[in-house]
Amino acid sequence: MILETLVTAYAPNLTAILDREPVPADGIVSHDLDYAADGVAFRGYIARPGGEGRHPGILVVHDWLGVTDYVRMRCDMLARLGYVAFAADVYGADVRPGPDEAAAVAGGFYRDRPLWRTRLTAAFARMREEPSVDPGRTAAIGYCFGGSSVLELARTGADVDAVVSFHGGLLTGPEGEAAHITAKVLVLHGAADPVAPDDAMLAFENDLRTAPAVDWQLVSYANAMHAFTLPDADAPEQGALFDARAERRSWAAMKAFLAEVFG
Amino acid sequence: MILETLVTAYAPNLTAILDREPVPADGIVSHDLDYAADGVAFRGYIARPGGEGRHPGILVVHDWLGVTDYVRMRCDMLARLGYVAFAADVYGADVRPGPDEAAAVAGGFYRDRPLWRTRLTAAFARMREEPSVDPGRTAAIGYCFGGSSVLELARTGADVDAVVSFHGGLLTGPEGEAAHITAKVLVLHGAADPVAPDDAMLAFENDLRTAPAVDWQLVSYANAMHAFTLPDADAPEQGALFDARAERRSWAAMKAFLAEVFG
Repeated sequence: MILETLVTAYAPNLTAILDREPVPADGIVSHDLDYAADGVAFRGYIARPGGEGRHPGILVVHDWLGVTDYVRMRCDMLARLGYVAFAADVYGADVRPGPDEAAAVAGGFYRDRPLWRTRLTAAFARMREEPSVDPGRTAAIGYCFGGSSVLELARTGADVDAVVSFHGGLLTGPEGEAAHITAKVLVLHGAADPVAPDDAMLAFENDLRTAPAVDWQLVSYANAMHAFTLPDADAPEQGALFDARAERRSWAAMKAFLAEVFG
Repeated sequence: MILETLVTAYAPNLTAILDREPVPADGIVSHDLDYAADGVAFRGYIARPGGEGRHPGILVVHDWLGVTDYVRMRCDMLARLGYVAFAADVYGADVRPGPDEAAAVAGGFYRDRPLWRTRLTAAFARMREEPSVDPGRTAAIGYCFGGSSVLELARTGADVDAVVSFHGGLLTGPEGEAAHITAKVLVLHGAADPVAPDDAMLAFENDLRTAPAVDWQLVSYANAMHAFTLPDADAPEQGALFDARAERRSWAAMKAFLAEVFG
């Protein structure tokens, strides 16, 4: 069943972020979206501008908690900007880990990159089938695990115009694989993120340097820890903390980047 | 003598950059500006919006060639954005090195940081005296040597709100000095700039990490070499090359940053 809603009610700290983008005159339309691939059921979410017409499609990949209100809120924000935003469900509709299980569930995908890529590719393909999406104009953004995910999607050689990682882990791949990337890449990185320390960042950059045709940018934000865009992140002793300044700046950087790509 | 001009004629490759910013209704006013400090004569340049009123003042510090049309063009661009832009003359009015002498002249300042800082401080003070400048709202930007220069100015503890380095060398200072920085810092960095290789970048970031109150950001642009914003840079074998994409993006990043700082 599809739940069609015009307004999703979020916690105040999510609403405060969402409302930085004004609601367009035609409003937005949003609802959960069930899809399936390879016999597995998934429950994503879609938000699009009200009215007719096709728009660029932005895949939004969740952090290790899966599809949450945080992800839905980001989709709504993107819809307010004129994009169709589709929240991928990498885990599957039956898998909604609590905070104590999330690392293990995400870890399963980090350790099984073929499965991870299959799930990402399925969600990306599903998004492009959406009637409101212009399948020739697509991007993917993601948070934490989702940031790593969109870089992983790009490494498959997916025909995606742009990817944006927010505090994602910075992985490398087999020699030569970086040259498969056709997407423009924007990495929004916390300079105090223990998930992506300096040696990982340099290895990531050096991997991309082997593929000089890849158009990438990396922004480091002073003192920003892991999960810096998540208002509920409050574990500085584990290196994860919301940072309102880096949240605002990184969103603005993404907006400018998408505007450059989609005109 | 002050030459008052409404339009400076630039080479076509500079005009193409300048004209990305539309001329405001009241136009801009620009002219050379002679000043002196400690018995030394300097010849800078100023560009401001037409009409009355005070505006944020942006110090613009030249690359190793000194005050050239490139710097004047950037000042005009900033004036079109509503800022008063003052081109510092670090070298002195009598020192206008050709390409073959520029490295030696700039090197003299890199080796004499007290003199370098004195020259920067003098130019900054002169800018703040300008009637069209709001002395409480200031920034400094610079290119190559000038990028290093604005970071150096920030390290003096100068009361400047923001500094932006375009492909500047990334120096460190004595232990504890980074904590003097009160300016917000934006470093726009070429990921293929041999003047600021990875080890220098990391040393720079680690130095700033010793001062957690400092608000800094560093953007790395893929494949961008030294001098990537200079249309005449064409020495890839020496690691210096114009990059139109990084030029546009870095200017846009600076604009967004100044808009954040000055509202």
